[in-house]
Amino acid sequence: MDEDTRRTAKRRAGEHAAETVEDGAVVGLGSGSTAAHAIRALGRRVDAGLDVRGIPTSYQARGLAVETGIELTTLDETGGSVDVAIDGADQVAGADLVKGGGAAHAREKVVDTAADELRVVVDPTKEVDTLDRAVPVEVLPDAQATVVRAVRDLDGEPTLRRAAHKSGPVVTDNGNPVLDCAFGAIEAPAALATDLAGLPGVVAHGLFVDVADAVHVGTESDVTVRLP
Amino acid sequence: MDEDTRRTAKRRAGEHAAETVEDGAVVGLGSGSTAAHAIRALGRRVDAGLDVRGIPTSYQARGLAVETGIELTTLDETGGSVDVAIDGADQVAGADLVKGGGAAHAREKVVDTAADELRVVVDPTKEVDTLDRAVPVEVLPDAQATVVRAVRDLDGEPTLRRAAHKSGPVVTDNGNPVLDCAFGAIEAPAALATDLAGLPGVVAHGLFVDVADAVHVGTESDVTVRLP
Repeated sequence: MDEDTRRTAKRRAGEHAAETVEDGAVVGLGSGSTAAHAIRALGRRVDAGLDVRGIPTSYQARGLAVETGIELTTLDETGGSVDVAIDGADQVAGADLVKGGGAAHAREKVVDTAADELRVVVDPTKEVDTLDRAVPVEVLPDAQATVVRAVRDLDGEPTLRRAAHKSGPVVTDNGNPVLDCAFGAIEAPAALATDLAGLPGVVAHGLFVDVADAVHVGTESDVTVRLP
Repeated sequence: MDEDTRRTAKRRAGEHAAETVEDGAVVGLGSGSTAAHAIRALGRRVDAGLDVRGIPTSYQARGLAVETGIELTTLDETGGSVDVAIDGADQVAGADLVKGGGAAHAREKVVDTAADELRVVVDPTKEVDTLDRAVPVEVLPDAQATVVRAVRDLDGEPTLRRAAHKSGPVVTDNGNPVLDCAFGAIEAPAALATDLAGLPGVVAHGLFVDVADAVHVGTESDVTVRLP
């Protein structure tokens, strides 16, 4: 799939999911390039009279919501309720995802799992039978060495994510570094998710297990919606 | 147990554990008033020629280590290795602890679980058959509402910890609020620990399961060492 086709596929997926949002909804606004298409499409629906409030999953999503005129709210204001979230994924297999390529997975997981319904938007290159992408693990700054050890004990290979436009490692919106942890094919995502969550110093990991209610897969010409 | 007796008991426990530290050790330095006695005693041993390096679990422990002349190191420098940690607890039952009264439990858990040997220092009021103290849960600022909901789903009653000398909630050394979550008697600490760790937005919780290698219980006149 060439880059132009992929861009079209992402746009179609995002716009398709934005069409499903109902009037009055509290909407979790995802991060990444495909979710950005959904936010822009939602903004156009707001211009046309749709009444929604958005809860962004990242600085990026918040900026885009402000730019497109989507009224914002917070989990505090809604008492932790979200009607629907629309978010991208780095990889999707059934209802399971790997996320965190944008290092926003801590807040994405809070918002996406709070939603009554999570709609995942992807292009076809993201769909796999078995997740095998490196799992981003956000850690407290002082826990890097201990988590590296523990991930190796789980047969993973951790790599500290380096920043491109700052010296040293990437720092998340929460002020923490990220270890990208390669486990090969992840045959038992639920067990790995529990193991990673239990490691002292882990703030959030990018394995989202059994969370997707619908997966909108865009192509050049249309969108397939899978219901895992 | 009156306050004077309790103070003596804490001091005895801390000093007793400090005596077990061997020359050349990397020592995890715990937080709280009982661990502070251990740090001071270790400082006196350093004055007398003991060669150790300390890894503090909090600002408090770091300040005390500097004050008492204990050379500091970091988990990064030791590659995540700690020979022995000496730390207090808010409650102890066998090898299980509730910690986090000082809101330092995230880093305490990283250091204490990295240690080859964890020596817990307490006065007798901390020992129980079944843990029943509210479990401190450090959460990302934006996850407060969703974690409150999730803790209630686990039959817990969360209370946001208020600060005494700042407006609003306590903020941890990592910049996050703390929910003190009462579960009554905790009959299955391992299962609860797994559930809490898996909640999106939870940075660290104060249930330390199967971690204590020795529990030094001070009294007015002596110290009992339990090996759970």
